[in-house]
Amino acid sequence: KKEIGKGLEEEKIRPGDRSQVHFRATPTKHPLGMGSPKNSSVSSEGGGRSSGGKGKKGKEWSMPHEIWSAEEVNSIKPTHKDPEEAVDHIALRGVRALRWFFDVLAGFKTGVIDEHKYLNRVIFLETVAGIPGMVAGTLRHLTSLRRMRRDHGWIHTLLEEAENERMHLLTFLKLKQPGPVFRFAVMISQGVMYNAFFLSYLISPKACHRFVGYIEEEAVHTYTVLLEDIDANKLPLFSNLPAPAMAKSYWKLGDDAMFRDLVLAVRADEANHCVVNHTFADMHQEFKQDAVNPFSIHASVTKYADAGVTPPTVADIANGDADDIAAGNTNGRSTDVNPASSQPQPQKPQPQPQAGRA
Amino acid sequence: KKEIGKGLEEEKIRPGDRSQVHFRATPTKHPLGMGSPKNSSVSSEGGGRSSGGKGKKGKEWSMPHEIWSAEEVNSIKPTHKDPEEAVDHIALRGVRALRWFFDVLAGFKTGVIDEHKYLNRVIFLETVAGIPGMVAGTLRHLTSLRRMRRDHGWIHTLLEEAENERMHLLTFLKLKQPGPVFRFAVMISQGVMYNAFFLSYLISPKACHRFVGYIEEEAVHTYTVLLEDIDANKLPLFSNLPAPAMAKSYWKLGDDAMFRDLVLAVRADEANHCVVNHTFADMHQEFKQDAVNPFSIHASVTKYADAGVTPPTVADIANGDADDIAAGNTNGRSTDVNPASSQPQPQKPQPQPQAGRA
Ligand SMILES: [Fe+2]
Ligand SMILES: [Fe+2]
Ligand SMILES: [Fe+2]
Ligand SMILES: [Fe+2]
Repeated sequence: KKEIGKGLEEEKIRPGDRSQVHFRATPTKHPLGMGSPKNSSVSSEGGGRSSGGKGKKGKEWSMPHEIWSAEEVNSIKPTHKDPEEAVDHIALRGVRALRWFFDVLAGFKTGVIDEHKYLNRVIFLETVAGIPGMVAGTLRHLTSLRRMRRDHGWIHTLLEEAENERMHLLTFLKLKQPGPVFRFAVMISQGVMYNAFFLSYLISPKACHRFVGYIEEEAVHTYTVLLEDIDANKLPLFSNLPAPAMAKSYWKLGDDAMFRDLVLAVRADEANHCVVNHTFADMHQEFKQDAVNPFSIHASVTKYADAGVTPPTVADIANGDADDIAAGNTNGRSTDVNPASSQPQPQKPQPQPQAGRA
Repeated sequence: KKEIGKGLEEEKIRPGDRSQVHFRATPTKHPLGMGSPKNSSVSSEGGGRSSGGKGKKGKEWSMPHEIWSAEEVNSIKPTHKDPEEAVDHIALRGVRALRWFFDVLAGFKTGVIDEHKYLNRVIFLETVAGIPGMVAGTLRHLTSLRRMRRDHGWIHTLLEEAENERMHLLTFLKLKQPGPVFRFAVMISQGVMYNAFFLSYLISPKACHRFVGYIEEEAVHTYTVLLEDIDANKLPLFSNLPAPAMAKSYWKLGDDAMFRDLVLAVRADEANHCVVNHTFADMHQEFKQDAVNPFSIHASVTKYADAGVTPPTVADIANGDADDIAAGNTNGRSTDVNPASSQPQPQKPQPQPQAGRA
């Protein structure tokens, strides 16, 4: 039982270790509030916490991705989007069945839930979670080549999601290396999930994004319960565990970051994936699969600059306030959005996930 | 015949148009010389030519990619790596057969070669060229998830190559929109090539990278001949054709850039793909498919900083001088590589492509 985190003390953030290019490093506004004015004191190193280490500037290696502020990671709550059409109900039931199946396999239905079961569960889920974004990104890339049309930024958000999930996996693997039976199960499930998702995406991209949206809801819920269990001292091995150096570097956590801070960041990523995938499903439903990706940096500038408001944060979206903000009800929020973008592309506001369930 | 470039005059670089995050915008050194000291006066807007337009800073949208200096784009020459093993000979013969097949289909074996035939040919080739990088990136991503190991940066270079090829296609499509027969052929060939490359990569990634390396050699040759034909005034419609706004923005060409400047940039991209794929094939041959990608920014810092030399440019590699430079024979090149990286990862020098054929 003491093997969790073994060797972590000796880990250092290597000089020149891989760092990131971040939305926050740009003056533009991400629709989820990244880089909004209240974070304007954040340096070009990015991140709402201190930088991952000294001398890292400019040594980017992975894809640009979100760096969450402390306020944002702490304000995430589980949300649920009610199914509307038949395909939504099918997607939700499919996710519920998979959830039950994983719970049984991970031993969450029987016996005591300890740190090993949690790590087994999240590691297994992350090996599968990295598949949908890569499949969807590939298929949209092939569609752009085949139809000889632009993609309007969807590919990048989808590939960044796949990369983000892979980093979740690699980070948790710093805490536990699985055994051969586990690895065999991962191999089988990848073969099944990759081909099933590939064929499903060819048939109905909308169903797939809705399906992933519901999976992400479950992920946010899982990490929320994990945080509650840590705070209730039910998982002592996690309570005093420092975050791996890779996590400190990737999410720009402080040098004193703990495992709990890592879980907060991962949960915020999952909340982001939830918003992205439900939005993409809604766009397919409204026949806007060829519209500009509202999460690309370019689109965020035009959309919110046009409305003259600061973009909503991920917390606003999760709480269902995004439509109010887009409609101009800023609730005291600043309106210092860059007015330099004078040629916005026409675009209607997008439906947002419903308020959270208790 | 006058339809080529129709509407190009009215095109403008839109305020807020999509721009790039570039290697040159970072203080690190790309192994192909991007961002080397002789380009140190380049602003954070990047690019060896003038910026793509005013007020673009910070509105990144696509993946980080190379921006070539005028010196680099003009120094590209066709190269050829001699086949060594049986798989190399098979790859080369496969590419030669495909080349002959495409020449016949594109009408390059009969009749006069005009602008329409050239555009048909390059557009068709670019619809296929965008497949290998995405397939290889996907499969290495799945391998990382399945084996629960890091990928060491290969995924990003491969996905960036796929994106780069898609941009080649979208740029040429600004000059000509193909008809229904052409689109049908593209659809068929994508189905065949995607599945064939996917299965082949599962069997032998080395053969696939070697195959793509030989395809890229052909691409550099094709664009070189196109440039020669433009310079010989054999293609008048291309001689006075301005570059599309998309190309000026993506490659940061000057506002007065012409079609010829676009072809120079595309040829440099292909030369980069040639070096990358032959290097990846060589690494597989030396059982280094789990070694650090020498083209990732992190790796370039450690490799060349360790040797105390400025990295070779793409021209150096094409001319076969890279090994000399890596061995410390700087030929008067500056040695002002950042010494801050003090923890290099062990890595042997990589074989480089042979000197060019006439
Ligand atoms: Fe995840
Ligand atoms: Fe996720
Ligand atoms: Fe190309
Ligand atoms: Fe290429």
